[in-house]
Amino acid sequence: MNAPSPLARIRIVLSQPSHPGNIGGAARAMKTMGLSRLVLVNPRFFPDPQADAMAANATDVLANARVCSTLAEALAGTVSATALTARRRELAVAPLWAREAAAELAGQAQTGEVALVFGNETAGLSNDEVALCKRWASIPTDPGSSSLNLAAAVQLLCYELRMAAVDPGLPPPVPGAGELAPHEEVEGLVNHLERAAIASGFLDPASPKRLIPRMRRLFSRAGLEREEVAILRGMLSAFEKKTG
Amino acid sequence: MNAPSPLARIRIVLSQPSHPGNIGGAARAMKTMGLSRLVLVNPRFFPDPQADAMAANATDVLANARVCSTLAEALAGTVSATALTARRRELAVAPLWAREAAAELAGQAQTGEVALVFGNETAGLSNDEVALCKRWASIPTDPGSSSLNLAAAVQLLCYELRMAAVDPGLPPPVPGAGELAPHEEVEGLVNHLERAAIASGFLDPASPKRLIPRMRRLFSRAGLEREEVAILRGMLSAFEKKTG
Repeated sequence: MNAPSPLARIRIVLSQPSHPGNIGGAARAMKTMGLSRLVLVNPRFFPDPQADAMAANATDVLANARVCSTLAEALAGTVSATALTARRRELAVAPLWAREAAAELAGQAQTGEVALVFGNETAGLSNDEVALCKRWASIPTDPGSSSLNLAAAVQLLCYELRMAAVDPGLPPPVPGAGELAPHEEVEGLVNHLERAAIASGFLDPASPKRLIPRMRRLFSRAGLEREEVAILRGMLSAFEKKTG
Repeated sequence: MNAPSPLARIRIVLSQPSHPGNIGGAARAMKTMGLSRLVLVNPRFFPDPQADAMAANATDVLANARVCSTLAEALAGTVSATALTARRRELAVAPLWAREAAAELAGQAQTGEVALVFGNETAGLSNDEVALCKRWASIPTDPGSSSLNLAAAVQLLCYELRMAAVDPGLPPPVPGAGELAPHEEVEGLVNHLERAAIASGFLDPASPKRLIPRMRRLFSRAGLEREEVAILRGMLSAFEKKTG
């Protein structure tokens, strides 16, 4: 039996959300990042068809959502909770940026239940709600425009939680990518190009300037494939026939 | 005159968006991260009251949005464009993860115009559209659920662009934080606690176990403030009076 992923121990808590569309958007955002435990504290409308519509294929996250009447109830059983807030607070605990907060929570979720708490769309979290959390965190924003949509903020934090908890590994492989040309084939092309350039009169071998080094730099940046080398040499041969 | 921020040279291009709410959501997402240049290729509905509603305070981004009839027109003047796509493509260019793609674009935007291109909500980007871009990038997601909401994807990429282009610096300061207690005051508390624990009979000085090291570890983790040290010592004095 595999140990459950840290993501399975992370609750996303929405306190008093007003717009059911945001609940659905949050559920979708969670599911894309592999999170599934949604907790709603006094949602204004839930369940709601708008939540279902915005959840897209994450209706299972909505169906399994827990509804609580207080934040304390939502946090029962957690060893750590982090409040997301854009406002500066009179609290004697230093805030973290979203990325560091997500890394910390993902670390704690290796051994215990943790929560990430989002406030109401307009009012945010109350000071009493923030005081129930061990930590608070902010998303770095443009100073003049710090208010993210609730579902967008959930998307961003769930992404950071996933980035912290699950190594994305190498990007997906490219099925259409050809075999890279080995060194000697690229050199064969460079030599061929040089011969053709001299034969055409474009390159004066007595004063070669930087043509060949420039072409070598271009090919090496591009990472030539074998098939491309063959195409380019075929084209050079055709030019040589015309010029020769 | 300051050089314009790299963020001012980044276009967010939405190709054939179907839902005007997503256009508004994208505008809001851009503005929170300090981006302002929205380009729409054949939007189904624009302008539209739903776009305005979802833009919140970013209606200026919508008002300044450029509408084009082709992606080629949208990319005119750019030195680099990256296509966002969740699908694997038959393209001989390796994809990047969102974070690396954003860092690359932000770097290029120091000297030239660049674009980040998002496809239609349902169909994504066509192969022809992706082929117009130098790069393509994917957001790491749960393998079973890779489809983000369009505005959420824009939020996430604009966040990564900002993180790459603008050092968020230290998190916001805590106005309510008290002055940290200097070393000798914390040591005074530890000694006071030890005396009180011995006087109360809780601690046997002949067999002190780990009480004092544990308390020292707790205090050092908490980062005690001067006022807290004063409160704790006041409490200890009150206990000593009772026990003595």
